[in-house]
Amino acid sequence: MPDAVELIRAKRDGSQLSDADIRWLIASYTRGDIADEQMSALLMAIYFRGLDAAELRTWTDAMISSGERLDLAGLTAPTVDKHSTGGVGDKVSLVLAPLVASCGAAVPQLSGRGLGHTGGTLDKLESIAGWRASLSNAEIVAVLRQVGCVICAAGAGLAPADRKLYALRDVTGTVESIPLIASSIMSKKIAEGTGSLVLDVKVGSGAFMRDIDSARQLARTMVQLGAAHGVRTSALLTAMDTPLGHAVGNAVEVEEAVATLRNSGPRDLVAVTLALAAEMLRLAGLNADPAAALADGSAMAAYRAMISAQGGDPDAPLPAARHRATVTADTGGYVQRLDALAVGIAAWRLGAGRARKEDPVAPAAGVICLAKPGDTVTAGQPVLELRTDDAGRLDRARAALAGALTIGPRPPAPVDPVIERIS
Amino acid sequence: MPDAVELIRAKRDGSQLSDADIRWLIASYTRGDIADEQMSALLMAIYFRGLDAAELRTWTDAMISSGERLDLAGLTAPTVDKHSTGGVGDKVSLVLAPLVASCGAAVPQLSGRGLGHTGGTLDKLESIAGWRASLSNAEIVAVLRQVGCVICAAGAGLAPADRKLYALRDVTGTVESIPLIASSIMSKKIAEGTGSLVLDVKVGSGAFMRDIDSARQLARTMVQLGAAHGVRTSALLTAMDTPLGHAVGNAVEVEEAVATLRNSGPRDLVAVTLALAAEMLRLAGLNADPAAALADGSAMAAYRAMISAQGGDPDAPLPAARHRATVTADTGGYVQRLDALAVGIAAWRLGAGRARKEDPVAPAAGVICLAKPGDTVTAGQPVLELRTDDAGRLDRARAALAGALTIGPRPPAPVDPVIERIS
Repeated sequence: MPDAVELIRAKRDGSQLSDADIRWLIASYTRGDIADEQMSALLMAIYFRGLDAAELRTWTDAMISSGERLDLAGLTAPTVDKHSTGGVGDKVSLVLAPLVASCGAAVPQLSGRGLGHTGGTLDKLESIAGWRASLSNAEIVAVLRQVGCVICAAGAGLAPADRKLYALRDVTGTVESIPLIASSIMSKKIAEGTGSLVLDVKVGSGAFMRDIDSARQLARTMVQLGAAHGVRTSALLTAMDTPLGHAVGNAVEVEEAVATLRNSGPRDLVAVTLALAAEMLRLAGLNADPAAALADGSAMAAYRAMISAQGGDPDAPLPAARHRATVTADTGGYVQRLDALAVGIAAWRLGAGRARKEDPVAPAAGVICLAKPGDTVTAGQPVLELRTDDAGRLDRARAALAGALTIGPRPPAPVDPVIERIS
Repeated sequence: MPDAVELIRAKRDGSQLSDADIRWLIASYTRGDIADEQMSALLMAIYFRGLDAAELRTWTDAMISSGERLDLAGLTAPTVDKHSTGGVGDKVSLVLAPLVASCGAAVPQLSGRGLGHTGGTLDKLESIAGWRASLSNAEIVAVLRQVGCVICAAGAGLAPADRKLYALRDVTGTVESIPLIASSIMSKKIAEGTGSLVLDVKVGSGAFMRDIDSARQLARTMVQLGAAHGVRTSALLTAMDTPLGHAVGNAVEVEEAVATLRNSGPRDLVAVTLALAAEMLRLAGLNADPAAALADGSAMAAYRAMISAQGGDPDAPLPAARHRATVTADTGGYVQRLDALAVGIAAWRLGAGRARKEDPVAPAAGVICLAKPGDTVTAGQPVLELRTDDAGRLDRARAALAGALTIGPRPPAPVDPVIERIS
């Protein structure tokens, strides 16, 4: 039997771990036979030494094998999913899943909750009265069959090793490792049973990957892992230096997503959503025009059907915040920069996010970006609106926004929100 | 208040930790407020990133401050201690402490037990009937005052942070880090209250440091740490490619130590002991001739007084092993090499060492090196004698010795067991 300390030392000293060693490590850790303090030391050694392609494939496979796999083979439509590495104002899933479903694919979007300054898709949808995030495997398949898309929580049965490893990484400073990020994301998506997968790898101040080189490396790593497991996978790198759209929070993002489904969404959100939809349809082998599905109301119909199928009322009024306050421009000119991270942290502090996994989120809290880079403003004009149920939170949110906005005499260079495609 | 995850990430990313951060980390970990999995991730980050001189000074100081300090200020003789990084057949302390005491110093030798292939001084002395390793602080001072030297276990009150960190490092692959080794050794020695300290840093196959560069770096790091805490500290690098002396085990090493005190010790053991004694006396400011103290019986008198003061009978017969077996030379010629690690592992497997901290050791088990590098042997001549109480252990001990001995037609180059001095 392998010895945990010997394997930690081997990885620490730059050796490659064998398939058998990796499978033993993941299985033993999931069972509780390897202690947290040993696994965290190994994760830190992996942070420094990495995992090569063969190690990473086995590591990911062992994580998938730690639990069940969803069986979507009974569906007639081709299955395709999207995963975002997380950004500020990233409500893309809410529009994209029904949009792609309305074009003929089945979209099994198993999602997570927000932690830190990036929001979670489930938290956003839970601001809709009655909507349920937790479905059984049978319910997931039934909603997919009936509506063509489902957005719900990944059940505890999928990749339990990842659940345990992710919680450990979170408290041990071992989150920011490309092989560990890639295996965490891909083990869940592969276990979910999708036939194709498009990755939205965000790059910029509000993203997990701050620079384009790391984003490319993460995207390539995940695309290779998908291919190695028989999932057609590609990635788009998209910009996350400024929030996507105008709304950052939970209910406020649902509202903006619904406006987008009504074909009146903000330009950057629409561009990213359509690019991802086109990529998903291409991988699924479907020849359909997503822009038309947005324009003719079929995407909206799929959205309403999906919300209803999960117990939600798409016509229920969304919760409104008790307090609103604004941040005004201190000079006139062009908005040259509106920092995504600062806005994300402000929304978090207003109550939209959580500090610990067990915390609730305030559905109505958030930030509305009244002006975005490229817009012109006059001195004293409101540029950000802060919403919260707890007025005591406003000061700390304002503090997060200090220096977040740059206004100057010239317009900024225009930015294409879709940077490049990796496949 | 600092945040453990932020500090792990900072060290991981190569930042220097502040004094306050380090003190908070060590105090919180000792109290149990920082989890083992967080500390092990930090230790692995330190393995890769190191600690600079200022960080290491504070880290060590925080470990000292985690417990009590022995107060030796009431002694009239200057206090001086020796610490060895551990080797095979290293019974130096048993001779050195009484030798230096007989030259006028007070030697407060707080020691450890063996783990792995290197023996522990306390395990060796415990083969003497009645001898007690555990003394109260008051008893330590009383024996020092009465005899001039004491060899005993470090009480639980000294550097409890080190006790906890060492146990964690042992199971998380984070033992082999120079700053962590240096702080572990020096925190205990400084807490012990000695005025001067000589480090015996062993180099070679049977030592913790296999190469001279790492040994030098460890020695320099510890000498600096001692100086920073007001302890006059120097180090000798000594050879550990072959066992020191002939006996490797517990009772067999006591026997060889007693022979050395009777002024008939093996050449290499005497050379290392006298070099360390001279260095200790120099640091203590004493002008005495240790070779004379060995020759005139005063070192032996101090040894007998020390054993008696701790309840032992220096005249009691030592335990004898139930089984003896020999390894013979398969050819004639000069012994060119006798590998320290292999002999250490063989003695360990015969019962002289322990696999886990709670295991007992077999006092009579061990290996006698009947021939050492430079000796001539004829084919079939016994070169190693294996001693054990459990004949079932002989095969695995023999297996450890495969390839451990090289015999050739020419004598090996003579090796000075004292390599260099670092101060």
